[in-house]
Parts: sequence; structure tokens; C-alpha cells
Amino acid sequence: MTALTVTGARLDDAVVGLRAVDGTITELGPGVASQAGDEHLDARGMAICPGLVNGHTHAAMTLLRGYGGDLPLMEWLQTRIWPAEAKLTGEDVYWGTRLACLEMIRSGTTRFWDMYWHQHDVARAVLDAGIRSTVGQPILEFDGAPEGARPQDASEGLARLRDEFGSRITGSLSPHAIYTVSEDALRLVADLSAAHDAPIHIHLAETRQEVTDCVAAHGCRPVEYLDRLGALHERTIIAHGVWLEPDELALVAERGATIVTNPSSNMKLAVGRAFPYPHARDAGVAIGLGTDGAASNNALDLLAEIKALALLQKHASGDPAMLPAPDAWDIVTGRHAPALGATPLEVGEPCDFLLVDMERPELVPAPFLDAAVYSGAGPSVDTVVVDGRVLMRDRHVEGVPEVLARVRETAERVRR
Amino acid sequence: MTALTVTGARLDDAVVGLRAVDGTITELGPGVASQAGDEHLDARGMAICPGLVNGHTHAAMTLLRGYGGDLPLMEWLQTRIWPAEAKLTGEDVYWGTRLACLEMIRSGTTRFWDMYWHQHDVARAVLDAGIRSTVGQPILEFDGAPEGARPQDASEGLARLRDEFGSRITGSLSPHAIYTVSEDALRLVADLSAAHDAPIHIHLAETRQEVTDCVAAHGCRPVEYLDRLGALHERTIIAHGVWLEPDELALVAERGATIVTNPSSNMKLAVGRAFPYPHARDAGVAIGLGTDGAASNNALDLLAEIKALALLQKHASGDPAMLPAPDAWDIVTGRHAPALGATPLEVGEPCDFLLVDMERPELVPAPFLDAAVYSGAGPSVDTVVVDGRVLMRDRHVEGVPEVLARVRETAERVRR
Repeated sequence: MTALTVTGARLDDAVVGLRAVDGTITELGPGVASQAGDEHLDARGMAICPGLVNGHTHAAMTLLRGYGGDLPLMEWLQTRIWPAEAKLTGEDVYWGTRLACLEMIRSGTTRFWDMYWHQHDVARAVLDAGIRSTVGQPILEFDGAPEGARPQDASEGLARLRDEFGSRITGSLSPHAIYTVSEDALRLVADLSAAHDAPIHIHLAETRQEVTDCVAAHGCRPVEYLDRLGALHERTIIAHGVWLEPDELALVAERGATIVTNPSSNMKLAVGRAFPYPHARDAGVAIGLGTDGAASNNALDLLAEIKALALLQKHASGDPAMLPAPDAWDIVTGRHAPALGATPLEVGEPCDFLLVDMERPELVPAPFLDAAVYSGAGPSVDTVVVDGRVLMRDRHVEGVPEVLARVRETAERVRR
Repeated sequence: MTALTVTGARLDDAVVGLRAVDGTITELGPGVASQAGDEHLDARGMAICPGLVNGHTHAAMTLLRGYGGDLPLMEWLQTRIWPAEAKLTGEDVYWGTRLACLEMIRSGTTRFWDMYWHQHDVARAVLDAGIRSTVGQPILEFDGAPEGARPQDASEGLARLRDEFGSRITGSLSPHAIYTVSEDALRLVADLSAAHDAPIHIHLAETRQEVTDCVAAHGCRPVEYLDRLGALHERTIIAHGVWLEPDELALVAERGATIVTNPSSNMKLAVGRAFPYPHARDAGVAIGLGTDGAASNNALDLLAEIKALALLQKHASGDPAMLPAPDAWDIVTGRHAPALGATPLEVGEPCDFLLVDMERPELVPAPFLDAAVYSGAGPSVDTVVVDGRVLMRDRHVEGVPEVLARVRETAERVRR
């Protein structure tokens, strides 16, 4: 038996402790005391809170951080990103994902939804880093598509994820987008999702062009198209959804699907408008938050991202009261979108939590929620625990120099 | 004689050293070596760059950070900010400004433009913190306006700033806005600006209402109004300028005035649109960057702010190539707006500089400019030197606990 005890942490207006045995929270509240043999964390001056959930990223794209920034979208993809990605091996993806996990741990993310090549190397990196992920090999149809990109290969990939990795890793079906995957393939994805009880993670309605093309090709808008193919349900995770209209949002809500918004990436790539949050909220859509890949952000810090989301939504709506801190906090912790699989901070649940250092000058004297949402609190995360294991304490994470060295080698090679 | 030497720092593609004697840079380039008796900073793995310039803030508003967030603007001001501010003493403002300076040092700001009550206490705090500021007592005309708020008092305030504080502190005339200061008072401000060779720091065109009211009251838009009163010239620093039209921007450029944009504050308070950067750029306006006060941001981190500006401008223009990293860097370092008084990193200039730790996972493997502009590099600033004095090294700044304790006491009292 291994036990971990936290004492002196602030939770809302109370001072609380937490005890976990073998990775499960057994006590949470005032009066929890450390027992002989427990690993003990003194959390005085710190707030305790659940880990954050990054609902959409391409973790290994840390390898391409700052490569070809400020270029027009197609030029960026065609002259920089795609040629560089074509050179990436599974080992490269492993180290890029390790760097992403480091950055996520350092800003409080304990679970993320990934979409990238070499999904088993992604899974291996996540396992080694100690956090949680739903990984997904992109399904894409074009000549010369890499191994595993066909929908027919997805079952085998999912089985391997289930068999070779522990409970911290799950798999998804990740058709890249409706404009890169055929109707037949999307139907197959929908069938596989039902057969494996697996989520579908897809880019949708990121650009206006995609909507226009969808209407021209299929006579309906993207959400209706997905729905017609049986691919819109409570296991569907839609990344972006920038160009969805109110009737589409109503259908997303009715089907119980989730939308993950990525404000920094949408702004940086200039997709043309803000995610229609007020309509999505009114329709009752489950909403998550993503950073997208580090090549189009260029950070994986969810507490910077939630500030970007709250500010963008106030700006776009002209209403400073739009998306107030408590609602923003529900989104960044994954509580607003249960399908994202957040771990609640409750007795009986897996022991995942953060300690945020409220003595940092940047946060004083704000109340916790305001500090977490509006003050860029990522660098104030002091401690990260996942599955009862301390991954960061006093901002120290093991193994940093090797990760940085390997990433630098790869980055130099693929950017040449 | 006191000397400081830096070795092993990266500047563009070179490894350089810097030596400063009595606060002035005497050598900068490859091959600089530390001499006996020098204070020596080993900067291997770090980039050296100039300090950042915050062109508009209300530093002591750190005291009100996170107080009444998410309220509609007038409710926020009337029920929270103004009642709390009415309770602030000079000593409170001193400690609030000390906290702001701490936060600014920790994210690389070495000079800021302030507008707040009790300007001599602000100046004292800046002096003690070790950085540079142009401070300004707001000029406001209403019944019960606080001491020093009348334009007639401004000369005395400027003289005291000049006589009692050293070269790191300068004064400005800070009429709050055209809707809170009369035409006569603005004319007097213009005269005093000429007589004292002092800058004018003013909020202008922050909201659409202000423009509408100006046209109704004066028959012209805000920039023309300022110009008519003789208050638009190369010493004028305009905060916000969100609602300026192209012909106004052309006049700002013609008169050599500066506009300081505050993207996070503008978004958080939902002023209704983005600062028209493309027009300002095309007109040749000198542009600076500000965080505004911590009550409407809620951070004073200029490297977070420059990312917000670059992303907002890409978003608003629909062009991912808008405001590329080199241009953003010129703005955040104050190089784009000479009137803001940035200290260049050059031989013969005052020894102000930053060392940015390029070994932080968040920045790897991006080139310096991309990392500085797009990766939220504030917490990666390792070392801050102003006037040859090391204010932060390895992220350690002296005196933090006392500042936090005093701010907490004040915050509790004024929020009651």
C-alpha cells in the first residue's frame, strides 16, 4: 500500500487535507492528518484543485514550435509543416510528446486529447510522463497517406492501445476532417465507434471554406452531414466548431456531442470569427477547451488559454459579463463536458490534483477563481499529482534535460 | 567604480558578452571578458535582450486585482472600484505599486507609464523597486476630486518629482480623459506640457460612447479636439485609441504622437472592437503596448500582452501574417515609439537588460523572437538588470514577503 497525504491546502474558503491510498482519494476535507509512512505534501499557502483537461492538441507538434510563424495558412502548411512532418519517425514523435507532457504538467494539465501520427509512440510518451491521454491516429485518405491512416486500420490500433497500455491511456477514432475523409470512411468510423464504444475526435467547421465546400458537396452543413452518417453522438468530440450556426449547435446538444474550442489557435491562424460561445451555451452544448498544437499557439498552457477564451468571448459579444470566471473554470477543468473524461476531486476518484501557489506576486490578492482564470496562473502551479504519483513538486519535474536535448536534435534535423 | 559583466549570452545568432561600468554599457559583443572585481553573470543558455516598456498602466490597482471581475463596466466602477479607491492612502498606493513592480520585474518590464493618485508615493515605490517610470497624477474635474487633481496643481507636482527623485523617475501631465476634464483645463495642460517639456498621458477613444459624446459636445472627433487645444504633439501618449478612424490616425502620425494599445483590457472590458492597428501602421503612428491596470487584465506581463496583441490583430484582420513577430517585438520593447523612453541595448546607454532562459520547456525549440512573442515567455525571464543593478537573478527578487503582506492587509481593508 502506498499513501499520499496533503495538509493545509485551501479549497474555496476552507483549509483542507487530502489522503489517497494506492492512487484513489480516500479522504478530503478539514482535519485530514498524515499517517506514519505516508508521503506528505505541506500545502500551506496553496490552493488545491482538480487537474486541467486539454480537449484538443497535437502534442508532438512541439517539435515545430516557432517554425514558419506568421506565414499565410496554406504556405505555412505546404512549405513548412507538411514537409517537416513527413520526416518524423515514431521516436521523434515520442520525444515531441514528452516535451508537450512536460509543458502540460508545468501548467497543470493532467489529461489531454491528442491527434497525431504514431499514436503508439504518443501513448508510450504519455505513459512515461505520468499523465492521462486519449490518443488518436489521424484517419486521412490521400495517395501516400502514412501507415495506419486508413479507417480499416483503426480497429487494430485501438486493440493495441487497450492491450499494451494501462488505464491512463485510451484510444479514439480520429478522422482528420470531413474534407479529407470520404463519406464511406466516415460511415465506417461511425460503425467502429459503436463497436468499440470509442470516441470520435474530428476537426469540424474550423474555416468558412470548409462549410461552403460541405454545402456544395453534400447539400447540408457540417453538423447535419456528420449526423446523417451516424457520426454525431455522445462520444463525438468536435474540435473548433467556429463556423457552426445556432441550428447546428442545437443538434450537437441534442445528440450529446462535445465541442472543444481553441481560441489562441483560431486567432493565430485567423479563421475569421470567434467560436459562437453564447449560442452554444444557450443550446446546452458541452464545451471543452484546447490549445491545439504548439505550432499554432505556441503554448500548451491551459490557464493562458482559458484567459484567451474568456477575453475573446467578452470582446466578440461586447459584454464584459460574458463567460464569467466560474463558467470558465468549469470549462478548463473539463467539468462542462463529461465526455472529455475529467477526474473529479472527490473521495473514491483517482487521485489527480494540482496545488497552486497563491503566494506568487502575480496572483496576490485575487480570490482563487479570478486568479486561475484571469491572471495567467499556469506558472504558479507548484505541484501536480496524477494517479497518486507526484509528477511535479516545487515546479521540479524529472528528466527535463534529456527531453530538451532529444527534441533539439529532432527539430534541427526536420527543419533543415 | 562598480562593474558588471555578462558572458555567454545569445543575441541573434551570436554568443556575446556585455560589460557595464557605473550603470553604463561599455562593451557589448563577442569576446567580452569579466575583469577582477566585476560582478559576473554567467548567461549560458540564455538570450540577452532589452527591457520591456509598459506604455500604460495604473500600477497600484494590483490592490484591486480580482475584485468585482465579470461585472458590467459601470456597475464595476461604481460599486467596486471607485468606493475602494476612495479609501486608498498614499501608503497603500506605495505598497500596491511595489507589488506591481515585483510582477513587472518578474516578467521583464524595466520601464512603465503610470497614471494614478498619490504620484509621489508611486515614485517612491518605483525608486525602491529599482526600475524606471513616468508617473502621472490624474487630472480630473469633479466635486470632491482628490488633492492634486486640479491642473493648477500639476506644476508643483512635476517640480517635486524632478527635485526629489533621481533620473529613473520622470513626470507627466495626465488628464484622465476628454470627458472628465474641461476644455480650459486641457488648454492649460497643453501650456504646461510646453513650459515643462513634459509628456501628456491621456485615455482617448477607449469607447464608442466617448466618440459620440465628443462629436455632440465639440463638433469633432477626439483627435481633432485634442489637436485644436494644442494637446496633440510628439510628447502626447494616447492610451487605447480603439475607436480612432484612419483620418484621425493620420493626424496622430503627422503630429508625432504615440498610441499605446492595451488589448487584454480592451477585450476584458469589451470596448467593442480591436485597436485599428493596420490603419495605424499604414499611417506611420508610433505604437506602444500597455497592460492597463491589474483590475482589468488581470496581469502586468507584457510578454503575455504582446501575444494577446498579435493574436487579436490576426483575428480582427483575418490575416495570419498580420503583426509578425519582429514588428511585435519592436512594439513590446518600446522601439516602435521613441517617446516612451526605452533604453536601447547599446554601448553608451544605461545598462538595462534581460536574460531569458531558453532552456525552459515552454520555449524549446523555438527561435528567440517566436518564443518571446508567441510562447508567453514572461515566466522564462531569469535575470533583470536596470541601471547596472541586478534586480532579479534566477527569478529571485528581494523583499517579496513584506510586499505581499502589506498588500493583503490593504486589500482586505478596502474591499470590506
